[in-house]
Amino acid sequence: MKGLRKITPYIPGEQPNYVNMIKLNTNENPYPPSPKVVETLKNFDAASLKRYSSVDNQELKKALGKKFGLSTEHFLIGNGSDEVLAFCFQAFFNSSDPLLFPEITYGFYKVWAELFHIPFKELPLTDDFDICFSDYKQKNGGIIIANPNAPTGLFRSHDELEQLLKEQTDVIVIIDEAYIDFAGKSAVTLLKKYPNLIIIRTLSKANSLAGLRVGYAIGNPEYIRIAESIKSSFNPYSVDMLAETLATAAIEDDAYYQETTEKICQTREWFSEQLSTLGFCSLPSKTNFILTTHPKIKINELYHYLETQDIFVRYFPNVQRLNTYLRISIGTQAEMEKVLTVLKKQVL
Amino acid sequence: MKGLRKITPYIPGEQPNYVNMIKLNTNENPYPPSPKVVETLKNFDAASLKRYSSVDNQELKKALGKKFGLSTEHFLIGNGSDEVLAFCFQAFFNSSDPLLFPEITYGFYKVWAELFHIPFKELPLTDDFDICFSDYKQKNGGIIIANPNAPTGLFRSHDELEQLLKEQTDVIVIIDEAYIDFAGKSAVTLLKKYPNLIIIRTLSKANSLAGLRVGYAIGNPEYIRIAESIKSSFNPYSVDMLAETLATAAIEDDAYYQETTEKICQTREWFSEQLSTLGFCSLPSKTNFILTTHPKIKINELYHYLETQDIFVRYFPNVQRLNTYLRISIGTQAEMEKVLTVLKKQVL
Repeated sequence: MKGLRKITPYIPGEQPNYVNMIKLNTNENPYPPSPKVVETLKNFDAASLKRYSSVDNQELKKALGKKFGLSTEHFLIGNGSDEVLAFCFQAFFNSSDPLLFPEITYGFYKVWAELFHIPFKELPLTDDFDICFSDYKQKNGGIIIANPNAPTGLFRSHDELEQLLKEQTDVIVIIDEAYIDFAGKSAVTLLKKYPNLIIIRTLSKANSLAGLRVGYAIGNPEYIRIAESIKSSFNPYSVDMLAETLATAAIEDDAYYQETTEKICQTREWFSEQLSTLGFCSLPSKTNFILTTHPKIKINELYHYLETQDIFVRYFPNVQRLNTYLRISIGTQAEMEKVLTVLKKQVL
Repeated sequence: MKGLRKITPYIPGEQPNYVNMIKLNTNENPYPPSPKVVETLKNFDAASLKRYSSVDNQELKKALGKKFGLSTEHFLIGNGSDEVLAFCFQAFFNSSDPLLFPEITYGFYKVWAELFHIPFKELPLTDDFDICFSDYKQKNGGIIIANPNAPTGLFRSHDELEQLLKEQTDVIVIIDEAYIDFAGKSAVTLLKKYPNLIIIRTLSKANSLAGLRVGYAIGNPEYIRIAESIKSSFNPYSVDMLAETLATAAIEDDAYYQETTEKICQTREWFSEQLSTLGFCSLPSKTNFILTTHPKIKINELYHYLETQDIFVRYFPNVQRLNTYLRISIGTQAEMEKVLTVLKKQVL
């Protein structure tokens, strides 16, 4: 057969699903979506689904414009930040010079680069798993950095990002802020000063809407239009009517999400301390997960043992620097207390 | 700025939306989704949206498997047939020989070919707007045919498709069956005999779910796996939780949709006859729209006049062979009676 494409796809975390399991393997939010989302869904008229969804997502863009104090032209909406990133890779990274990103980061960057035949270079992290920004001073066709980074959970300051942006004025620099709500200040404030900056956000993490698939890019309207033309050439209606309607309700209820985010951060700090008293070494996380290891425990055995206790976490056996670590998403306080009880039995 | 992509995107039909308008410009279904879909939406637990949607869409694949008498491995699910087609273009059309499709067909085929740098050749239709299958006997890297074709509405028989498939054994042949429910027999029965056949279906037309974005491919599992690997490398969760759940309910309620489809076909036949008594010349449609022209009327003027009467149809001013035609979607019987009253005033 002629013309077939062979490619190694991204392998997402498993999605086990049964009552009483503690699912801490895909960084989902343990709290339900905002009551306004629930109410909006209840009032949604199913008959309207016979019509096409909005092609320009004006309702959601207006809500985002209000949230960020920016005009609607600054936003591109997509089916999860994955789709938004895929559009941005196609829109912005068409150089023969390599796209640069950290050696350990969101696994999908490499997959998209390969899918779209984009040359790329993975730059090593420091011994502390930190991004070495000085390495990025080299000829390149674009840069993508997750901040906070995943699966390390580490956050880099605006001063450091600004230094990077100052040096890179002729390529697009993407900052992927999937976990920013758990970290603090967004790089959105840098947009005015650095027009080549594109910021990526998702409603899957802090907004408890992983199952709804909504993400967005924030950027200079000139570049957003280019990414939008890729979307229009690929699948213009990719955000369905229910997704746009519920996402808009979520964006309009910041107060609720600030509360749940605060709870998750508190649980994270508490859990991190508890891990430390058990002898675990964790990276200082600014996300809704913790990357942790233990000098005296075989991590792969612990991973499988946790599974037998209906606790699902993420393990990366094929990533050399990570195969002695577990990535544990932060669930509710009650869930993390149960996890701790199980860990104590294994460690003490 | 380095690396920016310049592309001419697909321009979808306008989406005006106000009370009492008659919207016949994007081939939407005038009837609401099945009562089972409405009920499923009512019972959907919004809290479950905090989890990721299914990555393999097993529930929907099982329902489709039952509908078509095929195993679940025969299906690829995507965010509308647009996304499914985009995956298939990337998966199957990687030859240096041109992809072949009719000169007048779904406008997106050309857009994807350009987006993915696929060489292509548009083959002319006959004077009667029919596909000239003998022209496809030439060196090619794949073939895509919409059957029924759009915006002509013309349907070609299985015998003719089989003749094409017999001649094309070393490339993938896609039959896009977006409108098949309004036409009759699907090419699905040809799958066993012709393993290189891929069939594309959507829930946007006959299933009244344009706003939900669900489409699928049916094919040999060997090739479906390749298209699936493109999906997994692009956006594995593109079918959100609500979309999969409601689409499954729709597929399980064939009886309801057979009824609404039958009503649309009856209205189409009636409306087509009425158009003919007013002197319109229409192509014999096997879809939920009619392509029509009138020897004594300036079509662009009629198009704008209908708009003033709150009736929206589709006009293709930039397609040479179509700029004297209107494409009118089939609404409810009552809507088409109103349209007829307005047309009568203009024509008689």
